[in-house]
Amino acid sequence: MPKITFLPGRITQIVEEGSDILEAAKLAGMSVEAPCGGRGICGKCLVKIESGKVDFDNSGIIPEGIIEDGYVLICRSKATSEDTEIQILSSLDDEAGSFSDAKEDIFNIDKTLLPIDADFMPLVNKLFLKVSQPEAGDGLSDLDRLRKAIDFKKEIDISVGALRKLPEMLREHGGDITITYHSKCDSVKIIDVESSDTSSENYGVAIDIGTTTVAVQLVNLVSGHIIASKTDYNQQIECGLDVISRINYATKPSNLEELRQKVLLTINKSIAELSEGAGITHILNASIAGNTTMVHLLLGIAPEHIRLEPYTPAVYNVPNLSASEIGISIFADSECFIAPSVGSYVGGDITSGLLCTNIPNQTEQISLLIDIGTNGELILGNADFMIGCACSAGPAFEGGGIQYGMRASHGAIERVEVDPVNASATVYTIGNDVPKGICGSGMISLIAELFSKGWIDAAGKLDRTRKSPNIEVVGRVARYKFFPDSNSEMYIDETDIDNIIRAKAAIFSACRIMLQKVHMDFDSLSKVYIAGGFGRYIDIDNAVTIGLLPKLPKDRFVFIGNSSIIGAYMTLISQKHREKEIEISKTITYIDLSTELEYMDQYMAALFIPHTDVELFKDM
Amino acid sequence: MPKITFLPGRITQIVEEGSDILEAAKLAGMSVEAPCGGRGICGKCLVKIESGKVDFDNSGIIPEGIIEDGYVLICRSKATSEDTEIQILSSLDDEAGSFSDAKEDIFNIDKTLLPIDADFMPLVNKLFLKVSQPEAGDGLSDLDRLRKAIDFKKEIDISVGALRKLPEMLREHGGDITITYHSKCDSVKIIDVESSDTSSENYGVAIDIGTTTVAVQLVNLVSGHIIASKTDYNQQIECGLDVISRINYATKPSNLEELRQKVLLTINKSIAELSEGAGITHILNASIAGNTTMVHLLLGIAPEHIRLEPYTPAVYNVPNLSASEIGISIFADSECFIAPSVGSYVGGDITSGLLCTNIPNQTEQISLLIDIGTNGELILGNADFMIGCACSAGPAFEGGGIQYGMRASHGAIERVEVDPVNASATVYTIGNDVPKGICGSGMISLIAELFSKGWIDAAGKLDRTRKSPNIEVVGRVARYKFFPDSNSEMYIDETDIDNIIRAKAAIFSACRIMLQKVHMDFDSLSKVYIAGGFGRYIDIDNAVTIGLLPKLPKDRFVFIGNSSIIGAYMTLISQKHREKEIEISKTITYIDLSTELEYMDQYMAALFIPHTDVELFKDM
Repeated sequence: MPKITFLPGRITQIVEEGSDILEAAKLAGMSVEAPCGGRGICGKCLVKIESGKVDFDNSGIIPEGIIEDGYVLICRSKATSEDTEIQILSSLDDEAGSFSDAKEDIFNIDKTLLPIDADFMPLVNKLFLKVSQPEAGDGLSDLDRLRKAIDFKKEIDISVGALRKLPEMLREHGGDITITYHSKCDSVKIIDVESSDTSSENYGVAIDIGTTTVAVQLVNLVSGHIIASKTDYNQQIECGLDVISRINYATKPSNLEELRQKVLLTINKSIAELSEGAGITHILNASIAGNTTMVHLLLGIAPEHIRLEPYTPAVYNVPNLSASEIGISIFADSECFIAPSVGSYVGGDITSGLLCTNIPNQTEQISLLIDIGTNGELILGNADFMIGCACSAGPAFEGGGIQYGMRASHGAIERVEVDPVNASATVYTIGNDVPKGICGSGMISLIAELFSKGWIDAAGKLDRTRKSPNIEVVGRVARYKFFPDSNSEMYIDETDIDNIIRAKAAIFSACRIMLQKVHMDFDSLSKVYIAGGFGRYIDIDNAVTIGLLPKLPKDRFVFIGNSSIIGAYMTLISQKHREKEIEISKTITYIDLSTELEYMDQYMAALFIPHTDVELFKDM
Repeated sequence: MPKITFLPGRITQIVEEGSDILEAAKLAGMSVEAPCGGRGICGKCLVKIESGKVDFDNSGIIPEGIIEDGYVLICRSKATSEDTEIQILSSLDDEAGSFSDAKEDIFNIDKTLLPIDADFMPLVNKLFLKVSQPEAGDGLSDLDRLRKAIDFKKEIDISVGALRKLPEMLREHGGDITITYHSKCDSVKIIDVESSDTSSENYGVAIDIGTTTVAVQLVNLVSGHIIASKTDYNQQIECGLDVISRINYATKPSNLEELRQKVLLTINKSIAELSEGAGITHILNASIAGNTTMVHLLLGIAPEHIRLEPYTPAVYNVPNLSASEIGISIFADSECFIAPSVGSYVGGDITSGLLCTNIPNQTEQISLLIDIGTNGELILGNADFMIGCACSAGPAFEGGGIQYGMRASHGAIERVEVDPVNASATVYTIGNDVPKGICGSGMISLIAELFSKGWIDAAGKLDRTRKSPNIEVVGRVARYKFFPDSNSEMYIDETDIDNIIRAKAAIFSACRIMLQKVHMDFDSLSKVYIAGGFGRYIDIDNAVTIGLLPKLPKDRFVFIGNSSIIGAYMTLISQKHREKEIEISKTITYIDLSTELEYMDQYMAALFIPHTDVELFKDM
């Protein structure tokens, strides 16, 4: 049987002739980025055949010239009888943790929304106690004496683990002991005991599970400080790019388990790296936010009814579960908080995000929250009412489905200036790095520039009539090359542009439907909160130019970044915020856009730059 | 290195010269009965060397003649350089499950004490519900609809396992669903969901963990019927014969874990056999009774402080723990009840046993409960007060430490008549089987007969002056042979008799101390409840003759058998009985006999048949 050697690393795998090379790479333990789940449409899993030969089934995404140079998509390649050496070009591990520092997000939020010291009350707390020493004839066991020392007026339970440590801990420092516990209405459960006073050490993790990325913050729960944070790809993307493809993939029980394990691996790897980096071993709290499907997959609950009529998920408001039940690698008996969902596609990420806005507090005016992710989620309202809906924006703004798309990390083109005369590009990258690809804000900037400089039309087609070294036509599709004079192939083509237009149309038309529901227009909005991993870099003028955002005075827009993780941070440290979030989830009325006949018309009308109704984007 | 072959089965083990053969047998997976933990004092681990040679260190218990025939104690044997074949004569598996049917015990109990139908309320219950089908736009998840269908006025939690099954179960039979749940004061936790009505299937196990034996009953919790029961050796006896030797053994953490695993293995094997026999797969409840040390070992809690001043156990009243936390092989998320202890040596077995007596109910008179096990436990009192103590009786009455002692199972001699003229024996065995050994009631009968027929004196020494084929003197120790004319070696010697006298002295003197505490005498007792695995077969006259029991009218004695398992049965099915048992545990005042100076004097005085003060046993 042929042997495949993966570079770098020279890891070998013996395979059968005709077998999938992506599978072989997984077997060999290589982490290959294949966001579209092997359907050959995202182009992310490009590899180079260094020697030998594979069978490659080109679905059209790879130009023939590149194939001649040895480049193929690993997900469309099968082993031949020849031994083969394959260079893996991108891997999920490459940029892990470096591309987004969620810690910065917090600075975009209205400070009055954050928990103050008085609110600090994690789910799992510590308490330092002095327990009396055993005395002959007192008739008290160690646990009885501990119970006596705690003056909660509640039933006191204890885990087997804590009970096992109790005799030694109680005697080590003369009865000085720190208990770790969580409370219910009428009971307290002790889950750990340590000798001496460790009550100043309580750490937790806030976790945001996005369809594409997973963010984790390590938090000091005594001071409220974020110690470190990390964002990584959700390893589930190997099994499908968006929630619908994940739900489809999960139909088979073993696939559901695979998805569960993949997101746990992503989360636990980040937790391990963060805690190792900070030298912290005992993490006692976790607060998790994610969309409805992500929560189902995390818990191993079949998500199929989310997409089958009448679209009923198994659970919106998950009761607190222990870390070991979920599989999160923190202290096993810890209880974890999971942000409540509202509808099939309006999840805990948005109820969490709402904590970062004034929407649930304002009484007179109304505001809008737009969370732009693979799944776009919107909330419109104020303290009196909230309506929410979701639309499928696709992963374009996060770099998915775009030939040279990438996440907003170092080396990503985030802003482009296009010359009106010859279409040449001036690019600005995150970290002033060598350009590696283009991120969401870069795409918005580029399309706005190309449109306003007249290089693309309202339908997103490049101008083929004017000569420019930057514009190249391959078959029936034109592309815009960033660096025509260099040996860089980097481009955006009309298919990419189309994906971006679809994404912005989905979001903009959803906004309009929501406003129509309450008989209002954009101008009635006091604030438009924009959330999402890419949100910080976005240029409002550009976003308005392409028709993603409505034309409103600039000061009405508030970028709140990854508000889901910030909400998770707040619910991690504050009982008040957990209660508020649950209250919010009960207030929101979920609108199912798939049952709104008007939505498809609005969407079609928005598939132009900026819109078929240009009046909408006129200066007011 | 030499090879040891164990027979029957011809299982081989390569060992180093000089290594322990008992260890080698364990390595080979042989289950050898070595109750004294390898100290060479119980004589239970006799094996026969069929070929080859071992180094045998005789501590005196084995007569030289037997050693010449190839018999040695495996626990005192070490490998030589020779290959050896060893016949294992007794193994723990031999009689497993057959020797005691705890089901019968229940017929000895005052029927008014047993739970009536109205009391039936296990810890884990089932409820059949009709849940509405999902409707578009109702804004309810599967869990929300389930919560709506349950009209408990409590917070409703659910396990991850139940949540995973929920979507399918809710849809399988149009919303007909049975939930399995347990309740706290203000919350209910659903731990399983099944489609259709399974509420009539709720099974549980009552478990009594004795130092020597473990009894398990499989119970139908809807009807209250005991389906099957099984008693087996506690596999911990390989590590020590009584609680003190177990506590000593557990000092090393790995030994503590070994003890935990051994009792779990014993329990889980019985549960597996009972449920397999009855064709029942889903066991939802467990109620466990055991002495304080047994509970610590079951939970893996270091028991050392039970025997170190000031004798403070880690826990008396264990909060409910899940089956998986404990390691009991029933439904993992089930909550289990563990009977509360009172003192270091008055445990949940006795609080459980008290449910089988009228002591906690009677208001005028007082009664005494004597639980005769390896550890003798006593309770004296009534509804107004109870005092309890424990004494170390040793395992003699259960067959331990007696050369030909055995448990009260088929083939055990349970009654003996001794001829006054020639001392010849007429024996009666359980099941009229071929005599295999002698059980507790047989020893009491034999010693009473030998004493009343004049063949032993008050100090327990056999009469060497009169000729009898049954009496043989070996070295300085005389022995009584049951069958001098046959080739059976079976005997009881003066060392055995001494062990029995010590056991009865410990119990009788503890009774006297207790009565002195409340300034009463035996005649004030309205009832004397006698509990213990051997209790059913005991003859009162014989027990009085040897000075184990006080001389009282026969109708004051009530034999309640293994009352610990019956109490566990009651608390398994009834909330009222669980509450009553906890109440009882709080009422009892624990007396530590080791701090009672008078006790040693009383004990010494009782080391005669029947007692140094023969007035005590005169007819009243």
